[in-house]
Amino acid sequence: MSDADLGRMLLEAHRALAAELADEMEARGYPDVRPGHASLFIHIDRRSGTRLTELGRRASMTKQGMMLLVDDLESRGYVRRVPDPEDARAKVVRLTAHGRRAAAECRRAVLAVEARARRAIGDRRYEVLREAIDELAASREVEG
Amino acid sequence: MSDADLGRMLLEAHRALAAELADEMEARGYPDVRPGHASLFIHIDRRSGTRLTELGRRASMTKQGMMLLVDDLESRGYVRRVPDPEDARAKVVRLTAHGRRAAAECRRAVLAVEARARRAIGDRRYEVLREAIDELAASREVEG
Repeated sequence: MSDADLGRMLLEAHRALAAELADEMEARGYPDVRPGHASLFIHIDRRSGTRLTELGRRASMTKQGMMLLVDDLESRGYVRRVPDPEDARAKVVRLTAHGRRAAAECRRAVLAVEARARRAIGDRRYEVLREAIDELAASREVEG
Repeated sequence: MSDADLGRMLLEAHRALAAELADEMEARGYPDVRPGHASLFIHIDRRSGTRLTELGRRASMTKQGMMLLVDDLESRGYVRRVPDPEDARAKVVRLTAHGRRAAAECRRAVLAVEARARRAIGDRRYEVLREAIDELAASREVEG
């Protein structure tokens, strides 16, 4: 077994799943969708769109980081910034038709990666893994 | 329990442990040591130093990324680039005296974070967690 520290191992496992997600998206006809893009596709409201700050909050990203992501996806034709119907001074990020197809595919790709991970380690360990990770995050919140 | 996908959860758990490591290092008198720096402190040969490409390999980082890290730590007085005694055309990254103290403290800080994580989730789940993460990475290697 690896003797790396747990923090490092968690990062490497994250990267392995992110690489699988990129492969899945490529196989589904979206070679330009990178793992980072999934953070937006998964968190954006499908029809009405979502404000930038709210997207950042849901994805645990800074507003700055989410802005770069939106710029990138806008230049690829996946999203547009449009005036917020509830507040004309604000903007929401909304999926284009192309973006809605990509987002739907991305959700399926995430599920496929998830199912493969579950098979790879078995149901029981998969459940313990999720539980343990949740508790790690919670113990940090309590102590912090 | 969280309904996020596993890849996302792994990243968040990594971030939680990285933040704890930064807190530990601050408490130990190294407020300018960031979690990213630990990748070098943990992987560098204590006395003889290590080449940049080898450091990158050990830390699973690109040479470019490791170069930025070394630049940063060099400007803070933790490391120096010196000629490789085994090949005068090459350089090795070597810890300064200040860097050796920081690296030793960083190893202790990593162990402290690790011990706290183990207590937070319990020995049994801690073992299953490490095992499951290792297997996830291995299943990726086989399929890739």
